[in-house]
Amino acid sequence: MRYARLSVGGRAVWGRVGERDVHLLSGSPLEGPTAPDVIGTVPRADAHWLPPVVPPVFYAVGMNYPRHIAHAKAATPERPEVGYRANNALTGHLSPIVKPAAVTGRFEAEPELVAVIGRTLRRATRAEAREAIFGWTIGNDISARTWQHQDRTFWRSKNSDTFKPMGPWIETDADALAGTTTLRVNGAERARFPTGDMVFDPYAYIVEITKHLTMHPGDVLWMGAESTCHLEPGDTVEVEIDGIGVLSNPVLLEGNHS
Amino acid sequence: MRYARLSVGGRAVWGRVGERDVHLLSGSPLEGPTAPDVIGTVPRADAHWLPPVVPPVFYAVGMNYPRHIAHAKAATPERPEVGYRANNALTGHLSPIVKPAAVTGRFEAEPELVAVIGRTLRRATRAEAREAIFGWTIGNDISARTWQHQDRTFWRSKNSDTFKPMGPWIETDADALAGTTTLRVNGAERARFPTGDMVFDPYAYIVEITKHLTMHPGDVLWMGAESTCHLEPGDTVEVEIDGIGVLSNPVLLEGNHS
Repeated sequence: MRYARLSVGGRAVWGRVGERDVHLLSGSPLEGPTAPDVIGTVPRADAHWLPPVVPPVFYAVGMNYPRHIAHAKAATPERPEVGYRANNALTGHLSPIVKPAAVTGRFEAEPELVAVIGRTLRRATRAEAREAIFGWTIGNDISARTWQHQDRTFWRSKNSDTFKPMGPWIETDADALAGTTTLRVNGAERARFPTGDMVFDPYAYIVEITKHLTMHPGDVLWMGAESTCHLEPGDTVEVEIDGIGVLSNPVLLEGNHS
Repeated sequence: MRYARLSVGGRAVWGRVGERDVHLLSGSPLEGPTAPDVIGTVPRADAHWLPPVVPPVFYAVGMNYPRHIAHAKAATPERPEVGYRANNALTGHLSPIVKPAAVTGRFEAEPELVAVIGRTLRRATRAEAREAIFGWTIGNDISARTWQHQDRTFWRSKNSDTFKPMGPWIETDADALAGTTTLRVNGAERARFPTGDMVFDPYAYIVEITKHLTMHPGDVLWMGAESTCHLEPGDTVEVEIDGIGVLSNPVLLEGNHS
């Protein structure tokens, strides 16, 4: 099943995504024992896609692909450790990534698998971690490298408004680690790597995180990227993950968007 | 006015705090143009206090008091920069801080002023930043120093469950920067400093943050601490900030609480 959130008349509404239409739902599929009712339909072509979830906690993995670590001349992590991103930066499928006028240097896309948590979890076993994943979506961890190197934290380098496109939907049935992640700019392939070629997989992260922290329904865990590429205003960047879909966003320069 | 959130019959309910009672509200005072209705009353003595808000984004300032910076032999920040904490770690007034069994070394309290944002804000002036503060509350930034030094991020050193007591309420009318912050353990004073003796005040932070990031109603900004002290299981730690109130929490060892 594919679940999305759409903007309908200015409100955020959950939907179940079909081949041609999105069936709007009375509530969140993440909450409660009862499945939400269908309350309407929007053609997919007319959908205004929001981030498919606004997480209580937004977890992000840094160095997690061997080739990324080698490229960055970083040490391979000895255990799963996690950082955070911020909800203000989230934006949906097809919405613009706005490059701030003040950004100089490399402005990069990082294509990432995202696990969406569906249960309250503490001290999870690996099997419990696997069962607690509600579904999978796609993230693009936009990064302004000059700010990343200048600042004490990642606050504006990775958390400026629109720097965290996520979507288009949550796929509940994918074998997300089995296929390929592809990064395209203006239709041209810029990176391609096996999604599951990670130092630690999502289940290992969840086991480690929940030794100390309770995870909650709707929490997201962004799994890191193997490769990145530079973006310019006017580009359209696409991240495709086999079994999930394609997340596509245009890049605009600040001041040149409404 | 003082606004709190209570657990009532397992649900989170907003309340307006009076001298003897908490008047339960039909909704959040942070949302909508209409004031919520009073729907019931709970004696203050019987209140189960929750964190007064669960923020969309949980901002935290690090080094922001000159004596803390000197003590840590750190450089004085040249501009306001901000980090993040995580909602799973929040707990309310009178709820236990649980020291994990695996924590060794110093386990410290950091008494902090917290600004609660009441409006959507981008590119705020200093005057707009001042007007956008809905009110003030109190935070205790519990920190496990060995983990803080061992780990790549603050994930478990500062974000383990119960490490972020916040409350007891949001005070909308305080002159929060004018008075004193006091830290007590088992009734004995362990620190006392002028709340407003900051390198950058909350308005300066909001101006800087909103150059790049949109702040939203309910976001919180923890302002850092001048002094800290070590806590042991069995202690009761209190943070008092003039004009707001007292945040009190017992410290328990993991495994010794229900």
